[in-house]
Amino acid sequence: MPEVESRKAAARQKFEKLCADPLPLDLTRGKPCAAQFDLSDELLRCVGPGEVRDEAGNDCRNYGVPDGLPGMRALFAELLELSAEGVLIGGNSSLALMFDVLSALRRDVWREPAPVLLCPVPGYDRHFTLSAHLGFGMQNIAIGANGLDIESIERAAADDARRVKGIWIVPRYQNPTGYTLRDEEVQALARMKTAAPDFRIFWDNAYMVHALEDEPAPLANLQSACAAAGHPDRALHFGSTSKISFAGGGIAAFGGSAANVEWMRRQRIVRTINGDKLNQLRHLRFFRNAAGVRAHMRRHAAILRPKFEAVQRGLEAELKDTGLAEWTKPKGGYFVSLDTCAGHAQQVCALAARAGVKLTPAGATFPHGKDPQDRNLRIAPTFPSVEELERAIAVLGVAIQVSAA
Amino acid sequence: MPEVESRKAAARQKFEKLCADPLPLDLTRGKPCAAQFDLSDELLRCVGPGEVRDEAGNDCRNYGVPDGLPGMRALFAELLELSAEGVLIGGNSSLALMFDVLSALRRDVWREPAPVLLCPVPGYDRHFTLSAHLGFGMQNIAIGANGLDIESIERAAADDARRVKGIWIVPRYQNPTGYTLRDEEVQALARMKTAAPDFRIFWDNAYMVHALEDEPAPLANLQSACAAAGHPDRALHFGSTSKISFAGGGIAAFGGSAANVEWMRRQRIVRTINGDKLNQLRHLRFFRNAAGVRAHMRRHAAILRPKFEAVQRGLEAELKDTGLAEWTKPKGGYFVSLDTCAGHAQQVCALAARAGVKLTPAGATFPHGKDPQDRNLRIAPTFPSVEELERAIAVLGVAIQVSAA
Repeated sequence: MPEVESRKAAARQKFEKLCADPLPLDLTRGKPCAAQFDLSDELLRCVGPGEVRDEAGNDCRNYGVPDGLPGMRALFAELLELSAEGVLIGGNSSLALMFDVLSALRRDVWREPAPVLLCPVPGYDRHFTLSAHLGFGMQNIAIGANGLDIESIERAAADDARRVKGIWIVPRYQNPTGYTLRDEEVQALARMKTAAPDFRIFWDNAYMVHALEDEPAPLANLQSACAAAGHPDRALHFGSTSKISFAGGGIAAFGGSAANVEWMRRQRIVRTINGDKLNQLRHLRFFRNAAGVRAHMRRHAAILRPKFEAVQRGLEAELKDTGLAEWTKPKGGYFVSLDTCAGHAQQVCALAARAGVKLTPAGATFPHGKDPQDRNLRIAPTFPSVEELERAIAVLGVAIQVSAA
Repeated sequence: MPEVESRKAAARQKFEKLCADPLPLDLTRGKPCAAQFDLSDELLRCVGPGEVRDEAGNDCRNYGVPDGLPGMRALFAELLELSAEGVLIGGNSSLALMFDVLSALRRDVWREPAPVLLCPVPGYDRHFTLSAHLGFGMQNIAIGANGLDIESIERAAADDARRVKGIWIVPRYQNPTGYTLRDEEVQALARMKTAAPDFRIFWDNAYMVHALEDEPAPLANLQSACAAAGHPDRALHFGSTSKISFAGGGIAAFGGSAANVEWMRRQRIVRTINGDKLNQLRHLRFFRNAAGVRAHMRRHAAILRPKFEAVQRGLEAELKDTGLAEWTKPKGGYFVSLDTCAGHAQQVCALAARAGVKLTPAGATFPHGKDPQDRNLRIAPTFPSVEELERAIAVLGVAIQVSAA
């Protein structure tokens, strides 16, 4: 097939040209860009001298109100679809809340060697690092175009001989696939029989309002579903404003049943007196309520849409109908997930690096950094400009062709 | 002794009068007062839109710089008398940093049942709650007018048959005695032989700049002393601005040897991506350097001095030469420690409560809330006004007399 051969040669030539003039580009992490932060800059001046009390009269400069400002709890309750009493406000990081919850469960409740967490893959690398750090075993669960492999989840969770204690879920616009759980998947997670009576769903709603369209994708209410199924304590909810206001400068929240909130309250009062209420107050004044957050996120979407479109355009231009890669077309979130042919992801990463494009290391989306098929790559389009993205995706596309050749 | 009897009767009468008209007063927690916070209000507007980069050029609205802003590390290094590389910036709470350190040590290093921490008493209740929560045993060590009981510390730390792993120390203006360690005590802690090769001093420098006088009491440099004694990794340092800028709205820091900093860096990157750099930047702009912090603390002292004087005046008026109580005369910090006759502290607390004055529960300054002699009471003068304090101390004085009668 001389045509195939000439296509391969053309790709190699193109690649060498790109390597000769490498433009350093970074597609590794899901960082917002400066234009997104500019949308929140008013937040920096909405709590000035003499404006330090919330509506309940709390002087936010002093100790106290460990559960978080009532208004902030109400705002997160709306976003997470929980009651205000079902929400506790944290510091600046939902990952830290997850760490603290897992750490306390591991220390006081799940003390056997290597209790197992189910990990939909590809998934969020920091969930896996955290789990390994705290001594959890991990079992991969496939998440693909058809959604979660619910059958495997049910089988693993129900296995009396094993120690499966929970599952990580990013329910809306999952990292990195962008997949949003369908109703029947939420129901199945809520209803399924589990061998562990204290099985927990770690519901990391990191992209709850991060739509590229006007409205976030519909998502069933896990808490109601769990309660209706007789498992009110099964779900632990997490969210933050890191990709809404300022990254690492926002507000995180934990939510769950009354029993879980009371448990968390007792845990965390030992660790700290309260969160930063001044920053809570800033967020409350700036956003007012969930509708304010959603309006704000439509302005984010206007910035991000062209970037996600550039990724799709670029991938289609380089790879459409080649059979060399498949990728997701997310309607929200922070990533595009791309699968090369089996055995090529690491090599593609290395090739892209030679041409200046830094990708999240192949395997990072799997527990212990090991993608059994060496296929998955995560693309983070939010931080670079459209022009940079176009260049980077072109490099990636050519790297995939060269790797296959 | 009819004179004694009539004095007792007079005290009882006075007490009943106070009870008849109770004014609710709270001396329980070391909370700054609003006037102190007012001194920091400029901090609320020193990072506005377009002012979000530090001197190193970091956009403080985005992820990154997990160790903390270089300028903030340098500022804390000056305050804690460490090198800037020896400091990591945390969130808003030094207690949280202590929790994370102890929790990690307990999980990964000190795994035997109930490793022991030495606890100078009276001491800070939250140190003890945290230790108990993480499964540490605690041994009381006396701290009195003559300082730390170094002999007991050395004996306990050197005991091969036990599992003594560390000691809690609030080195300057200790909570609640106000005691500052003398050079020879710092040297002894640095030099002493310990059975545990990884013995740790938890150096909670909570009141490092909190003098009631113009300059803080001299304090030897523990880190240098430990290094000189061949134990560079023995000391772990903690500090925060909670009682400098805003309580629970400030910046905390961890410090130690290169090895300890690297260990902590590896631990905490699993838990969170970074601290709130915008709040770091506010503090950096507002204080500039350690000299700025010290000047600021002289303004705090001007507010607090009359309050501490009112406590001394009141206690002397009610209790001088009665032999019913002894109390400390701190030159900084947030508390006065008062000892009643043995067996009276709980009763005094209950009596004071009847007259409207809420005291920290008797025993709170000891592990497990148990003061073996039932003597110690902690007085927190910072939050109430001078008038409220005068009234509250009068109630306390009378309650002590009535209890003794």
